[in-house]
Amino acid sequence: MADSKVAPTPLLKDELDIVIPTIRNLEFLEQWRPYFQPYHLIIVQDGDPSKTIKVPEGFDYELYNRNDINRILGPKASCISFKDSACRCFGFMVSKKKYIFTIDDDCFVAKDPSGKEINALEQHVKNILSPSTPFFFNTLYDPYRDGADFVRGYPFSLREGVPTAVSHGLWLNIPDYDAPTQLVKPLERNTRYVDAVLTIPKGTLFPMCGMNLTFNRELIGPAMYFGLMGDGQPIGRYDDMWAGWCTKVICDHLGYGVKTGLPYIWHSKASNPFVNLKKEYKGIYWQEELIPFFQAVTLPKECTTVPKCYIELSKQVKAKLGKVDDYFNKLADAMVTWIEAWEELNLPAGKSAESTTANGPIPKK
Amino acid sequence: MADSKVAPTPLLKDELDIVIPTIRNLEFLEQWRPYFQPYHLIIVQDGDPSKTIKVPEGFDYELYNRNDINRILGPKASCISFKDSACRCFGFMVSKKKYIFTIDDDCFVAKDPSGKEINALEQHVKNILSPSTPFFFNTLYDPYRDGADFVRGYPFSLREGVPTAVSHGLWLNIPDYDAPTQLVKPLERNTRYVDAVLTIPKGTLFPMCGMNLTFNRELIGPAMYFGLMGDGQPIGRYDDMWAGWCTKVICDHLGYGVKTGLPYIWHSKASNPFVNLKKEYKGIYWQEELIPFFQAVTLPKECTTVPKCYIELSKQVKAKLGKVDDYFNKLADAMVTWIEAWEELNLPAGKSAESTTANGPIPKK
Repeated sequence: MADSKVAPTPLLKDELDIVIPTIRNLEFLEQWRPYFQPYHLIIVQDGDPSKTIKVPEGFDYELYNRNDINRILGPKASCISFKDSACRCFGFMVSKKKYIFTIDDDCFVAKDPSGKEINALEQHVKNILSPSTPFFFNTLYDPYRDGADFVRGYPFSLREGVPTAVSHGLWLNIPDYDAPTQLVKPLERNTRYVDAVLTIPKGTLFPMCGMNLTFNRELIGPAMYFGLMGDGQPIGRYDDMWAGWCTKVICDHLGYGVKTGLPYIWHSKASNPFVNLKKEYKGIYWQEELIPFFQAVTLPKECTTVPKCYIELSKQVKAKLGKVDDYFNKLADAMVTWIEAWEELNLPAGKSAESTTANGPIPKK
Repeated sequence: MADSKVAPTPLLKDELDIVIPTIRNLEFLEQWRPYFQPYHLIIVQDGDPSKTIKVPEGFDYELYNRNDINRILGPKASCISFKDSACRCFGFMVSKKKYIFTIDDDCFVAKDPSGKEINALEQHVKNILSPSTPFFFNTLYDPYRDGADFVRGYPFSLREGVPTAVSHGLWLNIPDYDAPTQLVKPLERNTRYVDAVLTIPKGTLFPMCGMNLTFNRELIGPAMYFGLMGDGQPIGRYDDMWAGWCTKVICDHLGYGVKTGLPYIWHSKASNPFVNLKKEYKGIYWQEELIPFFQAVTLPKECTTVPKCYIELSKQVKAKLGKVDDYFNKLADAMVTWIEAWEELNLPAGKSAESTTANGPIPKK
């Protein structure tokens, strides 16, 4: 599939929103115009709400600043981070579409080794519309791509795969390194184009980066909470990691797939490693506790919807990570607030919560 | 590392044997001459032992035919398959080197996208000498390659990795498909060069192909038994799969890594799908039972060496798979015979079995 020609009409045009968190004018959209203009954009303005963000002409968008978030969510706005790209998840919540593509405003159109521009969104759509294979590794990578298949020894009963919930894209030029690695390798650039998409196996965690990411909002949306980061919080730059770990354990529990690999975007500039180190240092320490926690998480069978899974996860966060730092008690509470806010915005008025599935009800307390 | 220039001296020249199972003259070695000639070859001649296999001049080799195998192993030769490339594992047993590279005689030198010949053996050596990362997925693939590293969110405590036991290489041109897939896609060729090496995560099984494979014999050798296939057996073409599943669960238990990806070889011709179907059909059926079995295998803590793990695994095969078909009872016995033969050939005379580690003793019965 990935090698097929550009589709004449944009894929999933009416079923996908592009979510962009930003603090600046969005000139970067000019380069993406041929690819993004048919789609609806949700811009989440971080920082000073009195500032005006310029959006290039011709794009169809809605824009939310902090005042809008506070107005729409009221007291529940406390779960949305401020002065951190974690605020992007507000866009996930207000979208009414089935799919979300989210991208950072310092990401540009990359080129493949033949020099051809990469339509990142098109590749994400291909990834998310084809199944995943989390139960057994296929050595020729995504078996659903043109020119590939399942290899000898791959059980036939597993070849239909499972629905794909997440497509995680990568970055050429500036790699997504943490501050210590940035500091020791300031000149390292990612120049290796790996022509692969693969499913991250069940039971395996990965570092999900929010820079270039697509997901099926109906399948997994309520798990895509980017946590409490930035202003007033002890850490930053772990928003997407947190969302990724929560999302992966819930996908594993519910039988959904997570893919990583293509498409690449061009990540234009490295953030300041000294600033990053300040944001990250507690996270670097805490993640040594977080990974064993997420590796050990099991969700009970009764957790049949994402909100149920997420509320259960919040309880386990409080019980197991609260003793690591009080921050995790606050985060666990914010996880509950997030689900409550999600439900408010996403459950049709008058519709019984019990009748929903993926975006279903939170358990009664 | 993978992008560095060809080393002036062949890597691990005195520590690696190349094992080749064959039924024909080895003209294919001519193309490999610049890469293989410095190494010692172990040729396992399958089929009619009265036939003379021609080996191109200038190669340093030892050759074993069926008569040799019978003479060396005596009654224990029953564990070595006949008329099936599974016989290659006899070469693993008689080698005295730390590393094995095994390759089929229909595999030739592939070229990378720039047109440069791929030194497959050199890449395998790089893979096997650098650590693996089975506990957490790195989205930029092998973090030990030049130009790559661990990405943001990768726990620092896991960045030293674990020893790599296996390097599984891939194939351009004819992909390694089973008979049903060959039949439905007779013209499919693998043309996609994926410039990646990655660790197969802990707990994930994969289909290991024996065509282009390297392993650390000291770490995992006794698990590389290719089973009972071919002449007199109900199946074929599952030899490498069986070895791969056994090896992976033992690597997971002992904390060793398995890598897959680069290097590619050029696989020249597809085997006959009708013949393959006859060899495979029981395996295709049985693997639906085998995969859940291997996914559920747990080895007790007392299994601290590969032979101990392997003997324990043979018991579980008998207990759990014997009821699938009596073949698995025979296979379980052959697994024990294999370890006994391995020990005979590999334990230094007079050395106490108890003093060995990876190539250690089998439990007393």
